[in-house]
Amino acid sequence: MAGVFHEMSAKKLGMTTIVHEDGTLAGILTDGDLRRLMERHGGAVVNMKLADCMTRNPQTILSNVLASEALTLMEKRRITSVIVVDAQRKVLGVVHLHDLWGLQLV
Amino acid sequence: MAGVFHEMSAKKLGMTTIVHEDGTLAGILTDGDLRRLMERHGGAVVNMKLADCMTRNPQTILSNVLASEALTLMEKRRITSVIVVDAQRKVLGVVHLHDLWGLQLV
Repeated sequence: MAGVFHEMSAKKLGMTTIVHEDGTLAGILTDGDLRRLMERHGGAVVNMKLADCMTRNPQTILSNVLASEALTLMEKRRITSVIVVDAQRKVLGVVHLHDLWGLQLV
Repeated sequence: MAGVFHEMSAKKLGMTTIVHEDGTLAGILTDGDLRRLMERHGGAVVNMKLADCMTRNPQTILSNVLASEALTLMEKRRITSVIVVDAQRKVLGVVHLHDLWGLQLV
């Protein structure tokens, strides 16, 4: 797990995606997941395997949907970021609530 | 630190405030702070003192400002929650981006 903290910090999104070798989405790990793991396992978290910690079915959207749909999804689920994937579930990026904010879609 | 993880989870805000005995704001600890602490100190974080980990000067707003000002502050700082305090800096609550969202102020 140790390396993932740096990755999450570098991206400044409060989360990171985990992908299979072919680039398709395997799961995500968020700051909130990390806190819940700390609550349950304490400092032992650092020795856990990422595959055992990540959320395997995170919220995703296809890259061709309207930005307003991403906003609606975030509001409905009370989440602040969504993974953008293509039809083959390859990860194209992550859209954060703050990215959409400036667009003044609402 | 152990107890703070439960407190943060119970509030479902991804953060908690820390107050002095008189109710005034001492600091906050966010999920992001926790991840950065894990990055730097590993599992030893659980044995650290909250006073050594918290952010002492978080963003605050007074309870009598317009909700739109809170939104503007969150957008500008790319943060998702702000502490609401009174003139004596007593903590009145926390407003999350998702709380304001439904108001359709923008």
